[in-house]
Amino acid sequence: MAKYKMILDLDTGIDDALAIAYALATPESDLIGIVSSYGNILVEQAAQNSLDLLELLGHTEVPVFKGLSHSSTTEKFEVMKISQRIHGVNGIGEVKIKKADRKVEEMSGPDFFIEAAHKYGKDLLIVPTGPLTNLAAAIKKDPEIINLIGRVTMMGGALTVPGNVNAVTEANINQDPEAADFVFRSGIPLTMVGLDVTTRTLLTVNETKQWRKLNTASSSAYADIVDYYIDAYKETSPHLGGCALHDPLAVAVAVEPSLVSTLNLNMKVDTKGAYAGRTIGDETRINEPALTTKAAVNVDTDRFLEEFMEKLITLFQNN
Amino acid sequence: MAKYKMILDLDTGIDDALAIAYALATPESDLIGIVSSYGNILVEQAAQNSLDLLELLGHTEVPVFKGLSHSSTTEKFEVMKISQRIHGVNGIGEVKIKKADRKVEEMSGPDFFIEAAHKYGKDLLIVPTGPLTNLAAAIKKDPEIINLIGRVTMMGGALTVPGNVNAVTEANINQDPEAADFVFRSGIPLTMVGLDVTTRTLLTVNETKQWRKLNTASSSAYADIVDYYIDAYKETSPHLGGCALHDPLAVAVAVEPSLVSTLNLNMKVDTKGAYAGRTIGDETRINEPALTTKAAVNVDTDRFLEEFMEKLITLFQNN
Repeated sequence: MAKYKMILDLDTGIDDALAIAYALATPESDLIGIVSSYGNILVEQAAQNSLDLLELLGHTEVPVFKGLSHSSTTEKFEVMKISQRIHGVNGIGEVKIKKADRKVEEMSGPDFFIEAAHKYGKDLLIVPTGPLTNLAAAIKKDPEIINLIGRVTMMGGALTVPGNVNAVTEANINQDPEAADFVFRSGIPLTMVGLDVTTRTLLTVNETKQWRKLNTASSSAYADIVDYYIDAYKETSPHLGGCALHDPLAVAVAVEPSLVSTLNLNMKVDTKGAYAGRTIGDETRINEPALTTKAAVNVDTDRFLEEFMEKLITLFQNN
Repeated sequence: MAKYKMILDLDTGIDDALAIAYALATPESDLIGIVSSYGNILVEQAAQNSLDLLELLGHTEVPVFKGLSHSSTTEKFEVMKISQRIHGVNGIGEVKIKKADRKVEEMSGPDFFIEAAHKYGKDLLIVPTGPLTNLAAAIKKDPEIINLIGRVTMMGGALTVPGNVNAVTEANINQDPEAADFVFRSGIPLTMVGLDVTTRTLLTVNETKQWRKLNTASSSAYADIVDYYIDAYKETSPHLGGCALHDPLAVAVAVEPSLVSTLNLNMKVDTKGAYAGRTIGDETRINEPALTTKAAVNVDTDRFLEEFMEKLITLFQNN
């Protein structure tokens, strides 16, 4: 029996697609729902992609919820050109997969967080890999969830390395710095899985070739989708020599925290000026014990990549 | 017999004055010289303050060398108003102490680094607590020293917390980002003791009162000097509740590395634009092993403060 219940909050996205696969292939946690966010794409497309990918992977029992469509400080959201280059206009590398037979749930994403927090308590793991808008909205509506849930393990931010939007700002945090700052300061148990570690877990065509050989519907589609991503990384981050496994690493760390070494740190997010979106220690709380917030600063790359390939190959073989 | 030979590189400065006292009171290392830098004050005043303090503390055997008077990218150096507020116009809190009977050495600071590196090799610890201009000049003149010396333990920079000049930049690095970037990338064994840890080691008037009770020349002068510093911190960093023991912590860590926990990280210093002077991981070398550069990210505050007080009280009692 699974030890944990997991909710993903995705702007589905190529590495989000890998996060879904990793979560489904992780026996230690039941994926009980996917909340959708704007970011790599519009929220509607994120929800549709999640539905379609779940069907491709044979898991139509997982409900998908619609989250907020833009940050609380903006009127609307438009996808950045760079996001379209990295994830494709459709979010999954321009690859066409069958449209799911079912639809998103009626309940809103933030309400699903709240319901699940009350139902599952410490067993609940929340893994947001896009903006923190939905989680901030849930905490504002029901602050009790701060003390109910097990842990938030988020992909986003950059503490010891530069950002990927500019020298200080990572893309997910950049979408809604105010929401991120609110969540960081809220006291909710939180592990930040940022560029510090995700740019140390890379995938290359050597791995997607192994998937292709399986010759199943899911393995072929995922190989096509990820090859698009690897190609984009060659252009945007040539120094890395592969594509970063941002979102699946957050899923892995949620269930298996020992994959990373962490720093206990009271953090904040700058929200204004040249440094907006920067995730950093809060100098005004540096001498208070850091009880709830951890930042991942190193990762057991080999162990994660081995588990990642093993899990995904098993999943792809059966679908 | 002392295990190490230590050279301080100081812009003397109030916490530099504490670094001198700490180094003299540390039996595991012989203080074999002090190189002077611009920064908190002009280089000439830094040299004079070091001479005067060494005499006050009964250690006229330690030679003082003059380093460079400004960064390699500027024509001259002027003391910032904020430095004068924190350290006083004379660098030691406007306290008057007896002028030393002796003068600075003829040899230049960078040349002294080079000579000592060849003479003492791995036993040599270099502790710069101001700009890295002198060390960069020494490495440029004789790159061999990179592989000769034991370790550089520098006070400066900020990795996981904001800077103290602006949100990203710490004061020592701010004086000469190019020199710092050069030293960080040079491959010299280096431990960065930045604001991440130094703002966690604080002194208050409770401690200077203890010195005052000793009623010796050095204890009274140091109490006056540091009370000026504590007063300035009330104004510039009211959230801390004391003055930060920046420079003496670097001296302590040089001899006793286990006082801090560190992160192995290939680092760089941004030299341009809004982020100039920021110390951060180098994203282009994130997947190369970090063999030479460590950043201190946590400190055993209680243990350091205890050792600090014990050492300084012993020294002050005899002078």
